[in-house]
Amino acid sequence: MSAPEKQATVGGPGRRDWSTWPRYEAAVLGFKEYWYPVAWSRKIGEKPVPVQVLGQKIMLKRDGGVVRALHDRCPHRGVPLSHKLSSQEFPGTWSCCYHGWTFDLETGVLVAAITDGPESPICGKVAVRTYPVREHIGLVWLWLGDGEPRPFEDDVPEELLDPAALVVGRITVRDGNWRFGAENGFDDGHAKWLHRNALWTKRVKMPVWSEMKVIRDGPWITRRKDKMHYQAEFPGLGSFPRKKWYKRREGNKTKVSLRLPGTLRVKYETWTHFEWWVPVTGEGHVYVQLATMNRGWWNNFRFWVYYRVWARWVFHGMFNDEDRLMVEVTDAPPERLYRPDVSLTEWRKLVEQEARYSPGEAGHD
Amino acid sequence: MSAPEKQATVGGPGRRDWSTWPRYEAAVLGFKEYWYPVAWSRKIGEKPVPVQVLGQKIMLKRDGGVVRALHDRCPHRGVPLSHKLSSQEFPGTWSCCYHGWTFDLETGVLVAAITDGPESPICGKVAVRTYPVREHIGLVWLWLGDGEPRPFEDDVPEELLDPAALVVGRITVRDGNWRFGAENGFDDGHAKWLHRNALWTKRVKMPVWSEMKVIRDGPWITRRKDKMHYQAEFPGLGSFPRKKWYKRREGNKTKVSLRLPGTLRVKYETWTHFEWWVPVTGEGHVYVQLATMNRGWWNNFRFWVYYRVWARWVFHGMFNDEDRLMVEVTDAPPERLYRPDVSLTEWRKLVEQEARYSPGEAGHD
Amino acid sequence: MSAPEKQATVGGPGRRDWSTWPRYEAAVLGFKEYWYPVAWSRKIGEKPVPVQVLGQKIMLKRDGGVVRALHDRCPHRGVPLSHKLSSQEFPGTWSCCYHGWTFDLETGVLVAAITDGPESPICGKVAVRTYPVREHIGLVWLWLGDGEPRPFEDDVPEELLDPAALVVGRITVRDGNWRFGAENGFDDGHAKWLHRNALWTKRVKMPVWSEMKVIRDGPWITRRKDKMHYQAEFPGLGSFPRKKWYKRREGNKTKVSLRLPGTLRVKYETWTHFEWWVPVTGEGHVYVQLATMNRGWWNNFRFWVYYRVWARWVFHGMFNDEDRLMVEVTDAPPERLYRPDVSLTEWRKLVEQEARYSPGEAGHD
Ligand code: FES
Ligand code: FES
Ligand code: FES
Ligand SMILES: [Fe+2]
Ligand SMILES: [Fe+2]
Ligand SMILES: [Fe+2]
Repeated sequence: MSAPEKQATVGGPGRRDWSTWPRYEAAVLGFKEYWYPVAWSRKIGEKPVPVQVLGQKIMLKRDGGVVRALHDRCPHRGVPLSHKLSSQEFPGTWSCCYHGWTFDLETGVLVAAITDGPESPICGKVAVRTYPVREHIGLVWLWLGDGEPRPFEDDVPEELLDPAALVVGRITVRDGNWRFGAENGFDDGHAKWLHRNALWTKRVKMPVWSEMKVIRDGPWITRRKDKMHYQAEFPGLGSFPRKKWYKRREGNKTKVSLRLPGTLRVKYETWTHFEWWVPVTGEGHVYVQLATMNRGWWNNFRFWVYYRVWARWVFHGMFNDEDRLMVEVTDAPPERLYRPDVSLTEWRKLVEQEARYSPGEAGHD
Repeated sequence: MSAPEKQATVGGPGRRDWSTWPRYEAAVLGFKEYWYPVAWSRKIGEKPVPVQVLGQKIMLKRDGGVVRALHDRCPHRGVPLSHKLSSQEFPGTWSCCYHGWTFDLETGVLVAAITDGPESPICGKVAVRTYPVREHIGLVWLWLGDGEPRPFEDDVPEELLDPAALVVGRITVRDGNWRFGAENGFDDGHAKWLHRNALWTKRVKMPVWSEMKVIRDGPWITRRKDKMHYQAEFPGLGSFPRKKWYKRREGNKTKVSLRLPGTLRVKYETWTHFEWWVPVTGEGHVYVQLATMNRGWWNNFRFWVYYRVWARWVFHGMFNDEDRLMVEVTDAPPERLYRPDVSLTEWRKLVEQEARYSPGEAGHD
Repeated sequence: MSAPEKQATVGGPGRRDWSTWPRYEAAVLGFKEYWYPVAWSRKIGEKPVPVQVLGQKIMLKRDGGVVRALHDRCPHRGVPLSHKLSSQEFPGTWSCCYHGWTFDLETGVLVAAITDGPESPICGKVAVRTYPVREHIGLVWLWLGDGEPRPFEDDVPEELLDPAALVVGRITVRDGNWRFGAENGFDDGHAKWLHRNALWTKRVKMPVWSEMKVIRDGPWITRRKDKMHYQAEFPGLGSFPRKKWYKRREGNKTKVSLRLPGTLRVKYETWTHFEWWVPVTGEGHVYVQLATMNRGWWNNFRFWVYYRVWARWVFHGMFNDEDRLMVEVTDAPPERLYRPDVSLTEWRKLVEQEARYSPGEAGHD
């Protein structure tokens, strides 16, 4: 985040940093004490898959049908356990390729240091860290916290708790800090502007501006649209927008909500869209996009077809790619906020007050 | 700039830093209180062109025939104003692609925050910095200083003031700090050596060495050649150079001068060559090469042909590319200067004593 | 070297740094007071070859049949002396391409600053550092130390002293700090595991584990195999390895030794393999692999054929490429050592106690 050498200062320079929200400012790598979706279940097989989440390198591997997550670094000499030369020599274990240290996949304990023989005194004295894993609705979820894992249901939106729900989506890695992703997702102002020519909303009459409040709704904060303005006269400039004949439907009936640790929900009439921005490093995140419906197999099937032939490309693809372009280049602070940014400041306040502390973290009570 | 771990020290180690010329040493990004040529006029149209000059990111755009220069960062959330998704919605303004903040192109003032409606209280309270721009002799000139712009004529060499002058040339981006470019341009020693086999001076008998003084000449310092030596006997080594039959013309009648902020002038009998090294970052610069003549349309036209078919490729191309190779790899200090480097030290003295201060800069009187 | 955020701590966290061996820990760029092989003799001709060794940039060039080594940086303005535009103008000298400073190739002394004429007062007052060079058994050896060069024989293994020895091999540049290379070379544990499926040892029955001592042997430390275990039953896991019909020969009769400054010797029955890891930067090294025999021209010739058609590809290529993969990703400390790592700790102790000091180095007595 770079500061311009000199910024015109009509009305003051704006916000130079995020010290108003110190926990948020510090959370470059997110918050650890949450369950995060990190991969599609179907992508995790016997062959290890290295992932990086919240700055941690992790090896995912399925064993006996169960997905295991290990810190991806051999405690012996630091080689990645997911190295292509590593192997499984005994059931339920994984052997580092360099010297054959063999770890229990469930506990992480060193059960054999093969090249030191069966009596090796180091056995049972070393372990690689393992992480709690859940598989649910086709996704692998990880707990990376230092504390006890919270109940899974605390972090998974209720629409996604029923295993019978149809869940489709995309998981990609994107540039930009996770907070720019989350802020963009809930940002009231950009929706009307950045996406105004998007194919996804081609037929929808977008408001120029709206009156809006951010309200609390369980773990969520939600944007409540109070008044939409579809046409406006800007003094000295002119009218906006020009009328377009193909814009027929007025507004859309969506409800947009955000919660910790960085989960967006957009409720459509019959289905729901979700997003997660799971920090990878400070400069990138795993972008999880889901669409879900739970209205019986026939409706679900029809929605599945609709997703595959339309929404996947036009919404999760083209539409959210406009967001990607912005998240990549957002560079704040410094920043100068305006009225619609109450959606951002309410989110930051929520984080500041309610983000879970790790054991031992300063400020923990 | 790296120091060799150990340097043979016959006669001492040489100059370890530039602390003799502290302002010059500090001027990694050049001096701001000057007019700089930064682009060809014909390259700046309605579509924004992002440039980086003196470390600053700037968006150039023509509007109503006039070139405007804005700090290329939206004060709202830091997105580049030159982003390909940004647009012009109202005459004389430019709208950021993310949330539609709309800036007056001349003043930089926020005239509408469209997604906050016509009554948005932030209007008129924020501005993006704009920079004074001049178009002259086919070039766009920028004032990046913090102080009041100086008269344009103070910084433009007099040969270039007459709009009737024919001006041709090249603008490229080159590696290496701008000071290595400027020093190379005025450097007395290398001309005879580095370029000794250049096609541009194929027929010219180059001196092996010369006696020379650096004299003051208005804003310029000029190398006055006092005595040329075309052949020399080096004790214990032999004679240099071997005679070459095709070297016929003795010397060339050029006069080489340098001035702030880093402008080289080489006067040939009937035309003049100019160079600027405009800092981009500490490791690169915009290299502006001009050739100008002002002797009536017929002479100018003949020179234009000569430039297009010969001088552009052989002088501005091949010859100055030898300079580029050196500027890229020069690595000083440490350095060990020799007699011809009086051209360098006189330049550094000039900078030290006469470079304009920015308001508020330490040492300003 | 990165620390995992949290490491399971069954039995403690292991070694967090190398402060037990402070000289070793500090030796990121190796030890200077040694002769190092750096290039094949046949690759060094009249055209300068730039190399980087122990962090130093050096220009190698043959002149009058003798190889010269100069610090590859002109003391004038820092241009590399090995620049493609530099040239030889007088016998026994080398001229920098920028301003024609001309250095004696043997002493490094500036014998002419051509563009300052024959009387240039700087002549004889500046020198570029030169380095002692030896050519022996087809290799160029450099002394980069600050002290007096040691007798060449002190650093060259005795098997390589006889100029009649046949010496073949490969010189490549590899990633990873030189110490990871050296440790991998002498490492007892990995040989049995990492290479267990290598073509080079396809027919050899590898032990699962062995009892071993590291003994002193002149300048060398040597791994003495006391007892080999070819099969083992791991409690709760099973037997290792499965018998393979093509593994016939029991063990191999090699003797593995290591010495300063990082030289491996593997003695086979009739020939010997050597390795050097010559630091380039902290993250890379020149990897010198040699194979030598000295048993008369007929045996030597047969070995030469064997090397060209088999050992070069299967041993120096495929087998040692497995080592390369590990040296590239080793990341220690932190590390957690086990019994076979006595080979590593004995090496570190040797370095700690016997590595030569440079004049003026702290701790020098
Ligand atoms: S580094 Fe993993 S077993 Fe040695
Ligand atoms: S970042 Fe430019 S309008 Fe929001
Ligand atoms: S830099 Fe080598 S002679 Fe000037
Ligand atoms: Fe969006
Ligand atoms: Fe030049
Ligand atoms: Fe090995």
